Amino acid sequence: MKIGILGAGNMGGTLGRLWAEAGHDILFGVRDPHSAKARRLSDAAGFEPRFGSFAAAAAHGETVLAAVPWEATEGVLRQAGDLSGKVLIDCTNPILPDLSGLAIGHTTSAAEEIARWAPHAHVVKCFNTVGAGALSDARYGDHSASVFVCSDHPLAKETASQLAESLGFEPIDAGPLIEARYIEPLALLWIHLAIRGKFGSKIAVKLLRR
Amino acid sequence: MKIGILGAGNMGGTLGRLWAEAGHDILFGVRDPHSAKARRLSDAAGFEPRFGSFAAAAAHGETVLAAVPWEATEGVLRQAGDLSGKVLIDCTNPILPDLSGLAIGHTTSAAEEIARWAPHAHVVKCFNTVGAGALSDARYGDHSASVFVCSDHPLAKETASQLAESLGFEPIDAGPLIEARYIEPLALLWIHLAIRGKFGSKIAVKLLRR
Repeated sequence: MKIGILGAGNMGGTLGRLWAEAGHDILFGVRDPHSAKARRLSDAAGFEPRFGSFAAAAAHGETVLAAVPWEATEGVLRQAGDLSGKVLIDCTNPILPDLSGLAIGHTTSAAEEIARWAPHAHVVKCFNTVGAGALSDARYGDHSASVFVCSDHPLAKETASQLAESLGFEPIDAGPLIEARYIEPLALLWIHLAIRGKFGSKIAVKLLRR
Repeated sequence: MKIGILGAGNMGGTLGRLWAEAGHDILFGVRDPHSAKARRLSDAAGFEPRFGSFAAAAAHGETVLAAVPWEATEGVLRQAGDLSGKVLIDCTNPILPDLSGLAIGHTTSAAEEIARWAPHAHVVKCFNTVGAGALSDARYGDHSASVFVCSDHPLAKETASQLAESLGFEPIDAGPLIEARYIEPLALLWIHLAIRGKFGSKIAVKLLRR
């Protein structure tokens, strides 16, 4: 699958590398291909990332991952251009810069704002509750971590779910895109537990059932 | 432990019964001790619940459980009277009557509102992410479900955590009371998954770690 990744930071860079290792054709959209961040990604063993503009990454294939910091998201989507009909995977969290809380919530969500900024894209929320350092290993003993997937577009939900499964995660269908209003706070709960709690970042959420 | 339970519905009734079976001294505060709801509780095998006013339940011991519907909470706390210094366990979810979303969030939480309505109580959020039908069995295969516990009062957090552990749940210290802003949306995510998802209500959240 051709996947354009908007952003080459922790989340975008790690997902891009993992998907490239799985055989997908990745193009990173970045502000500056010569930045330290882009160079860091290139230094990762055995990985030769390709960089382009945000518009080039958006046009690369039928699937796009939005993985820039929340404050940059609207502008980057504007630069990305026409995303009509594309699967737009939103792994963002609308976190305040000091990580103390969310910038938006309750009456909206990052996913819904992204859907407004890219009105004909097929937005799907996925991966926002997994820390970048936890993406490469979804196993916790005999359990796989869950990821919550919500979208108003069934095929987009299916694409994101398959990409999650390919990394060893268990995708949980959480319904329509509006459910992001409850999945984004979960991410901040996770982040706060990872930062302040006694467990560090080697934690994940699992939906148990019987 | 003497525990006063405000409300004898699904959550309050089930927790009260389980705690009574564990040897705690329970008094239910209800609007009408002769109501059908109160009678249903009395019909549960081997359980002889005691009912009183909200004020009587609040005065019963040092621990109080707030378990009335969100819309009734402010009024019931007013009737409960002085809760100064008491451990006030908040298991509520500020859910809209049609379950479509939360009545409040993002800039506040049910826990913070309760703390405002009972300003000298030691409020601790706990049990709000466990369905009433899932309280009596915390085991899912070889895992125990997690409950997220947050409070500004360490002893209240300890009390709630011990009560959770006594029911087989794994209490997760989620920090200060403000974290309820992220734990209450998690409850709605759970509720929506239970109602709309393919799993039904036999689901629970677990914090995995390695």
